[in-house]
Amino acid sequence: MEPSNETTVSIAHVFKGTFAHSTQDAALEILENRVLGVDNNGKIAFLESGKDVVSLSEKWGFKASDVRQLEPHEFIMPGLVDTHIHASQYSYSGTALDLPLLQWLNTYTFPVESQYKDLSFAGNVYNKVVKRTLRNGTTTACYFATIHTDASLLLGEIADRLGQRALVGKVCMDCNNSVSHYKETTEESSEETRRFIQELLNKKYPHVRPIVTPRFVLSCSSALLRDLGDIAKNNDLHIQSHISENKEECEVVKQLFPEFKSYTDVYLKHNLLTNKTVMAHGCYLSDAELQVFRETGASIAHCPNSNISICSGLLNVRNVLNHKVKIGLGTDVAGGYSPSILDAIRRTMDTSKTLTIQNPRNQTLTFEEVFRLATLGGSQALSLDAETGNFVVGKDFDALLVNVFAPDGPMDICGLEPPKVLLEKFLNLGDDRNIKEVYVAGKRVVPFADSA
Amino acid sequence: MEPSNETTVSIAHVFKGTFAHSTQDAALEILENRVLGVDNNGKIAFLESGKDVVSLSEKWGFKASDVRQLEPHEFIMPGLVDTHIHASQYSYSGTALDLPLLQWLNTYTFPVESQYKDLSFAGNVYNKVVKRTLRNGTTTACYFATIHTDASLLLGEIADRLGQRALVGKVCMDCNNSVSHYKETTEESSEETRRFIQELLNKKYPHVRPIVTPRFVLSCSSALLRDLGDIAKNNDLHIQSHISENKEECEVVKQLFPEFKSYTDVYLKHNLLTNKTVMAHGCYLSDAELQVFRETGASIAHCPNSNISICSGLLNVRNVLNHKVKIGLGTDVAGGYSPSILDAIRRTMDTSKTLTIQNPRNQTLTFEEVFRLATLGGSQALSLDAETGNFVVGKDFDALLVNVFAPDGPMDICGLEPPKVLLEKFLNLGDDRNIKEVYVAGKRVVPFADSA
Ligand SMILES: [Zn+2]
Ligand SMILES: [Zn+2]
Repeated sequence: MEPSNETTVSIAHVFKGTFAHSTQDAALEILENRVLGVDNNGKIAFLESGKDVVSLSEKWGFKASDVRQLEPHEFIMPGLVDTHIHASQYSYSGTALDLPLLQWLNTYTFPVESQYKDLSFAGNVYNKVVKRTLRNGTTTACYFATIHTDASLLLGEIADRLGQRALVGKVCMDCNNSVSHYKETTEESSEETRRFIQELLNKKYPHVRPIVTPRFVLSCSSALLRDLGDIAKNNDLHIQSHISENKEECEVVKQLFPEFKSYTDVYLKHNLLTNKTVMAHGCYLSDAELQVFRETGASIAHCPNSNISICSGLLNVRNVLNHKVKIGLGTDVAGGYSPSILDAIRRTMDTSKTLTIQNPRNQTLTFEEVFRLATLGGSQALSLDAETGNFVVGKDFDALLVNVFAPDGPMDICGLEPPKVLLEKFLNLGDDRNIKEVYVAGKRVVPFADSA
Repeated sequence: MEPSNETTVSIAHVFKGTFAHSTQDAALEILENRVLGVDNNGKIAFLESGKDVVSLSEKWGFKASDVRQLEPHEFIMPGLVDTHIHASQYSYSGTALDLPLLQWLNTYTFPVESQYKDLSFAGNVYNKVVKRTLRNGTTTACYFATIHTDASLLLGEIADRLGQRALVGKVCMDCNNSVSHYKETTEESSEETRRFIQELLNKKYPHVRPIVTPRFVLSCSSALLRDLGDIAKNNDLHIQSHISENKEECEVVKQLFPEFKSYTDVYLKHNLLTNKTVMAHGCYLSDAELQVFRETGASIAHCPNSNISICSGLLNVRNVLNHKVKIGLGTDVAGGYSPSILDAIRRTMDTSKTLTIQNPRNQTLTFEEVFRLATLGGSQALSLDAETGNFVVGKDFDALLVNVFAPDGPMDICGLEPPKVLLEKFLNLGDDRNIKEVYVAGKRVVPFADSA
């Protein structure tokens, strides 16, 4: 009954030109002279040869003048997925990078995050970080907010209004010895998490959902971790946290939880490792722990800028991939200074190449593989790959229209280049000036509407 | 006789606001509420307290309306110094980063460089790279061109016309087994080097000078190296080359030159290490070799993007500084993909932090120290620090007017920040959009004149 389906949807956009995306089999697939249609529900209706544009227009009922023909140095790629970003730390991004994790939290992070009980302060920063990441091509973001429920709800509202696909987490922490006013009681944390989830779900935002967010083992009592595991399980929710970021942290976790086999085991035994869990960092996970990730379906958010900037460690992504653990990229603003997944792509290459410098037998990641991590990999890490991540018919159209040689942009044309070279140049040297348009679920969200 | 000196010069620019620069004693000196005057020869005439602006205007004969008052989120810093960049490789920057040095040269570099015998091809790329680096704040660049004398002269002409301070090198290489059409005979190389130097000097460009440029030991016969050492010595010229970039290269040099104590010794014995020599990379120099650098006054161009991107190595800059060897930063386009010293600053921090991750006793470079490497350090590495590098009265005014929160720029204002934080944000997150104006020897070279 294909025709009757077709009559219920109309075509909202048709693009013709070059498309670059990833599949499970191909880290990079470049599709030249194709035509892609987006329906009025924001879903990819077709992706066919450009030669078939006339028959497609008859079948789907669009006009030749509706077809958007891309320029030769333009292409469309999937939107970037930021699997780990602290919206509340955006205000000091690019500064305060001279201390290791635990001291960094106490000195810079907790004092700033405690200010988010002020909703006007929160709204100002959250508006900026959502707009900035959208401009940078982040169509999906997995956010840490702060412990404040209402400010976290405001982040969800802003993401919805500006059109970003987002998982939003009210942070949970009932342990904080250094900045003691920035924590909750165990009961508050559980109750406010329930309220946060309920109120956010009640908004019925189409692309913004809650995610259960214990900050990390050292900020949470065992009772709180157990409550949060139960809340996630009972509501089939996403979960995010941090794991194995820095050596000192790993050492302290080991001392505080001697009855557990590993850092991973602490989360596992509190029901926090599921196939909807994403854990940031994992620099020091053992192969046995990676095996637990694989078995549970939990994923890793690789945040190389942060890992280098606060001297945490170098994650061996090749080893994670060899263990068939889901993995995507994260900016980890503000431990990572850049709010751009393009930067995360570059730093992922750097980390992989650094590991090769030190061990020439390391199989360096290719730029094509890292492109996949930033798009399809991220959507898998967030268990959103049924909806987004690449250009498969039926998925939402989350995409960037890239102009590699945008006027006044950061790159120069020195000759005609094939699409693969244009993509590589964009990944290495491009910035928001090259991202001409951003689409989330078929809706153009960049350039911003005047009201945004 | 101070007054009579003053009558011979007039004041061309007066800036009032915040200045950030380095001195030998202070990696970062922030001067708030200062007034800086530039004379009609492009030299810094005065740098005084803003309170003295009235008496200064009487003394120097400028009007109150001539004073350019900076905005609170603006500051002026010294121009960036790129101590090592291959202008001829700019065309493929951001691509071709999947092979180690020797294979990279044979596969990507030599075939492209051989095309520069075509002056229109050369002029097109050289125009773009000089404009791009100026936009990125590079007021001084030390260029490798190609073996082609006339194209190298054209690079000098373009740098002069666009107003960049530059050392320009016609590349010398009489050995090339892989791309055999891209080399010269020993005699050609020496003679053409003499012609290049003579013709460039005859132009009497105020800020563009020739630099003697043996590509590196593996591209040059011993006879050629000796000729070039003599040419440099007889004309008191600058010298540039590459040293100790990658392990394979070091191994081959060792095998081919068993009679020399070290890679450094090869250059030393050919009279190529002087206090006007800058050598790129030096990742694998021993402490004994660094000692030779210190004794001869030769310097190192640290090119961290390139060192990571083609998996060469990680230079321990702290160790170089401890040996009191002069050192600046280089982009090494296109082994390094970025034509921006801001990127080199970030990658220098990354490399230093990576060394700290691996050895916590490493004393990580501070951002202030890396700021100095990119400005004063670079001018010292190129033996140009008598003329440029910081804001000392009598030096040329080579400077950037930075607006940290430029409209449509890459950063957001989330509150009032002190100048040191603004500088740190710019170094981590800024780009050419934040570089509102660029001055070389007192002349505004960015934004470009319409004719440029
Ligand atoms: Zn984080
Ligand atoms: Zn080089």
